Formats: sequence, structure tokens, C-alpha cells
Amino acid sequence: MTQARRLAVPPVAVPGQPLAAVGTPALLIDLDAFESNLRQMAGLAGAAGTALRPHAKAHKSVAIAQRQVGAGAAGVCCQKLTEAYPFAEAGIASIHVSNEFVGADKAAMAAELAAWTQLSICVDDARQVHEVGAAAAQAGVKIDVLPEVNAGQGRCGVDSTDALMALVEAIDANPALRFAGLQGYHGGVQHVRGWQQRREAAQRAAELTAAYVRHLEARGLRCAVVTGGGTGTAEFDIASGVYTEIQPGSYLFMDADYGANEWAGAFRPEHSLFIAATVMSATRPGHAVCDVGLKTVSVDSGLPRVWSRQAGDASLNYVAANDEHGVLEMAENTGRDPFGERIWLVPGHCDPTVNLYDAYVCVRGGVVEDVWAIEGRGLSR
Amino acid sequence: MTQARRLAVPPVAVPGQPLAAVGTPALLIDLDAFESNLRQMAGLAGAAGTALRPHAKAHKSVAIAQRQVGAGAAGVCCQKLTEAYPFAEAGIASIHVSNEFVGADKAAMAAELAAWTQLSICVDDARQVHEVGAAAAQAGVKIDVLPEVNAGQGRCGVDSTDALMALVEAIDANPALRFAGLQGYHGGVQHVRGWQQRREAAQRAAELTAAYVRHLEARGLRCAVVTGGGTGTAEFDIASGVYTEIQPGSYLFMDADYGANEWAGAFRPEHSLFIAATVMSATRPGHAVCDVGLKTVSVDSGLPRVWSRQAGDASLNYVAANDEHGVLEMAENTGRDPFGERIWLVPGHCDPTVNLYDAYVCVRGGVVEDVWAIEGRGLSR
Repeated sequence: MTQARRLAVPPVAVPGQPLAAVGTPALLIDLDAFESNLRQMAGLAGAAGTALRPHAKAHKSVAIAQRQVGAGAAGVCCQKLTEAYPFAEAGIASIHVSNEFVGADKAAMAAELAAWTQLSICVDDARQVHEVGAAAAQAGVKIDVLPEVNAGQGRCGVDSTDALMALVEAIDANPALRFAGLQGYHGGVQHVRGWQQRREAAQRAAELTAAYVRHLEARGLRCAVVTGGGTGTAEFDIASGVYTEIQPGSYLFMDADYGANEWAGAFRPEHSLFIAATVMSATRPGHAVCDVGLKTVSVDSGLPRVWSRQAGDASLNYVAANDEHGVLEMAENTGRDPFGERIWLVPGHCDPTVNLYDAYVCVRGGVVEDVWAIEGRGLSR
Repeated sequence: MTQARRLAVPPVAVPGQPLAAVGTPALLIDLDAFESNLRQMAGLAGAAGTALRPHAKAHKSVAIAQRQVGAGAAGVCCQKLTEAYPFAEAGIASIHVSNEFVGADKAAMAAELAAWTQLSICVDDARQVHEVGAAAAQAGVKIDVLPEVNAGQGRCGVDSTDALMALVEAIDANPALRFAGLQGYHGGVQHVRGWQQRREAAQRAAELTAAYVRHLEARGLRCAVVTGGGTGTAEFDIASGVYTEIQPGSYLFMDADYGANEWAGAFRPEHSLFIAATVMSATRPGHAVCDVGLKTVSVDSGLPRVWSRQAGDASLNYVAANDEHGVLEMAENTGRDPFGERIWLVPGHCDPTVNLYDAYVCVRGGVVEDVWAIEGRGLSR
């Protein structure tokens, strides 16, 4: 043997495998629910003539981006430059980086990406404009630039028309950059629970953005693109008439946090993202431990929920997450021994949970139909 | 050109690069502090004749495991079977999987690993013993088995001497398995803040474990290994005389949570793990946003701390983490504009933060000295 022996971690799943044979923890997509969510949002945006540019930060997967584009999406959003690389290489023809960035390494990445895809970026500081403009000019590429305006979240984005006009002038002064419109996004509004309250909050955010659009229009500056909106407000954003495109991401998956929103409109989301777990210790009555902890589910928006449609018994509750352990309690002590049981968990927050995995195990009818790579996992620069 | 063009994400850093040129977010190791922590713990265990088996779940890196073994460690702990693969392949000669597992896929992995390394595992249910025993017998390997006893945490582990004896009998009944001793670990005790209170809690946990050891000894069953302990209790665990080996992991890095413990003994840890961040938006006085959020730092044990020894100004506070944004507030509004500033963050909890990265950027004197792969990142089955 001249070839060295290799020890390789077995694949998480293979197509055709029964779901019951998939090792845990595994990140599952219920394809029926996923496809329903995909179709519904594409249908709502398409019927209104609003472009749909789904946020790839939620899924980080080329296979999913291609399905979104196949269903009519105008391209995708990414939140980081490195995150855009796998999508650009896979041929996603239009990518919007919906976030600010600073540094020569970042400017060089933007210029490299712009040679592969129709790239647009967000800015809120003229120094960023100059840095990217210089890199684009040197690379001989053209980059669309959208100033971000503060739509009420108070995170990034300019806060005044003066600051906005200064950015537009900086963009116009650089021949490698092109002013393409505005971004206005309010993350907090997405999670307002009540439908009517969320509608009102979305209207306020849209109006803040619209005021900037009108200011520019009054000076002869047309916004070809006004981008924003998210899963929680998509229907309101479409109806507002303010946005030319919307950026929902979580709509595909519907995590437990979004599931706690009231959904009273046309979009009827279903949970499609789950974590398959196994009870691997159950030494005390009423108490058990599963194999999903902080390294396989993000708890920033709350603990995962045990999915009772899949669990044998709805009385299991996930009560604490340690690094590699999920502590379960049984609401009623029925004497049942859950050792070895498999359960499905709905993650509290899909985006940072997806970022923990290398692949989705896509299931339908109890069988693995496909395994999709999560190429953007960990690409956070 | 017959070769397809490729678009590849630039490497996070290269040796010899000035730290100031490393793109952010980046996971940094301050090598001077790291080596101090490494040496101190090895010295304490070595002087007492207690074996040191550091927990690789904290660092997930072969380069670090090799340095631990080089400093005298008896091998490493892993918390998951897949996590053990890169260490076994790299030649770490002794690996203890300090956690229970269930399933045919897991049993097969244990048998495969046992052909590569001296493998020991934890059990707390006879069904696990039977499953692993059958796989080991079929593969023709021998696996050391350590029943886990509940040392007061109430998570995994048997709760009675009867349950323990049943496990020992199940192990003895399988010729592919070998009873090797006990594990008793109490995670909660590690984080008791006061030194004296932590000492007392560690003594209670050690005594619970010791009672099981004595029960076995009275029946002629010798525990070749009694394993447990962690970073917070290492000195007490060594002094207890109960453990033949200790399993600290976080001692290398000293995250913000462990940093909040009182350290009044011989071990004087230093923060060695940091996240380099850049302020990429600062549009309002007293407010800024950096590029480190939930996908690049775990917040389960609290938000990251801005490291004032590195930051230009100690008045920056990290007050909220969104997916890709870290919201900063300035305690005093000095009129300073932090746009483009680079800051260092101390993560709240090292283990799940490390699990978000593919590599450590190792720095000394402001220069990148090395880049270490995190091969175990995401290996959670």
C-alpha cells in the first residue's frame, strides 16, 4: 500500500436513505413545507410586480438560491462579501450585499465579485464609497451602490437627507460606481407579534424610507431600486408601494421565533426546518438528555421547541442547552422511558442555526430525497 | 483555457502578515497568553501526578491537541464521535469520548475509531453497552468503557450503585469491551464564581464520585481511571485525590464567563482567545456597529466584552448582537468617530464560538505567526 489509510467522517445522509437511519444531530428540510413557503412568497411578490430578492444569509445554500431564482427571484441578497462567493461562482447573476463593510480586503472582494455577477452594495459613509470606488476602478469593474437609510431601527444607515446627499455625490464622483437607489430595512419590525401592530410598524418604516426617495426625486435623482423588507412584513412591504424589491429570507424555514408571530394574511408559512435529535441518556424519571446543544442549535432567540407532530409524545420539553447536550423534561411523568427516541426540534432562530451545519438533509415521506450543501456556512467576512 | 475559472474566498490570514492587515471577523489566539495557560495547567497536573486529558471540544484543533500532548497530556477528550475523527487520524494515541451516544451509526463510528486510537467511551445505559459491544466485536476491536455517574449535575450518569453494577456487568459480559473506570463530571460547578464556594462545590462533586469508586473497590473492582473535572475546578480536582485524570478545556482560552470566576490559586489564566472586529458603521453620535454578530460569536453565556487593552478607547461597549451586526455604544460621548476602528472582543463562551470558525489566526507581537485549522468545527454527531 503506497496510499495512506484515511479516516473520514461518514456522510450525514445519502439520497434514498430512510429518515430513521439518518444519524443525529441532522439539519432537516421538510421539502413539502419548504416548497409551499417558496411558492407562496414568489406568488405574492410576482402578483404585485414587486421583485423578490431573497436573503441568502438565511440559507447560505446554492441549491436553495437556484430554486429561488427558478421560482422567479431577481437574484439574492448576501450580508457579507465572502458569503457572496459561492453564489457568484455558481452563476447567480445578481447579488446585493445588503450591509456595510470597511477595509482594503473587503473592497478587493467587492471588485472581484463584480467581475462575476451584477453586484450591488450598501454604504452609509463616504469613506466606504471612496475605498470601494478605488478598488473597482483599479479592477475595471462597475458596482451599483445603494445608500442605506435608517428606517427606524437605529442600527446602520444615514439619518438625514444631508448625509444622504453627501453619499450620492461621493458615488457620482467615482466613475466605477453607479448610484442605483436606496435600502431601508428595519429588523425589529419583523418580529412584532400582532398582525395589525406589525402592519403599522412596517408602514412607519416604509414611510421613513419613502421620505428619502421623495427627497431624491425632487432633485431629479431616480431610485431604480428601493430594497428592504423581510419575512415578517413582506405582505405590508409589497402593499406599501415604496419598495421595488423585498428581501425576505426566513420565509422558507419559519423558525420558532417567526412562528410566534400572528399570520393573518395571504402568506401561510409552515415550519420546514428541523433538527433531528436522539435521546441519548435517560437515567431519572421525568428527565432525559438529547444530543442537540449549543453547537447544533442557536439559542439567541429562545430554546428550540420539540415538534409534537413528529415526537411520539408532546409532553417532552427542551428546557436547557449545554454545549453538546439538550436537557428534556417530561411534563407528565407517565413512566415512559424515552432512551433512544428520535425527536424533531424547531430551532428558535434559523439563520445562526443553519450556520452551524455543512448540509441540509432534505426529506419527503420519511425518505431522504436530497442533501444540499451549505456552501456559505462560516463565510462571515 | 481548458481549466474553468474559479472564484475562491481569500484566506483569512497568512503567516508573516501584520495583524492590522487581517480581515475581520477573525478568531485570534494571543500566543503568549495561550502558551502561559498551556504550561500552567500541564505543570499543575504534572507536579501532582494527575493525568491531564484536555477537552478537545473547546478547541477542536489538531495543532492544539498536538501541543497539549507535547506538554505532557495523556491524550484528549472529545464530546462527540465525529469530533474524534480528525484527532484519531492525526495520531492522537488516546481519545476518551466523554459523553453518551445512541444509534447504530454511532456504534459503528466507535468501532472504526478504536482501530485508530486507544478509545474509551462513557455509558449510562446497558442498551448503549450492548450496541457498542456488538459493533466492537464485529470489527474485532477492544473499547474501554467508563460508566458515568451523576456527580450532582443531574444531567447524564447513573444515580445509584445498583444501576452502576448493572452497567459493569453488561460491560464484563461483552469480550470486546473492557471496564476501565468511572467518569464523574459536574459542569455547573465550574462556573461558581467565588473561589471558596467553588472549592466546596467541587468537593461535593468529587465525594459523590468517590463513593461510587469505593463501592466498586469493596467488590474487588478497581477503577484504573477516574476522570472528570474542568477548568474552573482543576486545582481542587487535583487536590481531591479522587480523580486519576482531569479534563479541562477552556483553560487554554479563558473566555469572559470563566474570566468572571475568582482565581485565587496557583493557576492564573489569561485571556488568549479574541475576535478581531471592525467598526463598519457609525452614523450617529455615541453609537456604532461592528461586523461581529451571532454568526461569529456565541452569546449563550453573555455578550462579548470589548477588550480595553487592545481597543483604542475603553468606553466602547458591545450592547446587542444581531446575525451579522454587533451594536456598540460609547459610555461617554467624546465626539470621537470610531468608523473603521478595529477592536478585539473576548467571547462570552469559547466552545460554541470556536465552533463557528475554520481557523485560528495565531498572533504574537502584532504579527501573524501561524494559522491553525479547526478540523473538528461542525463535527457534532
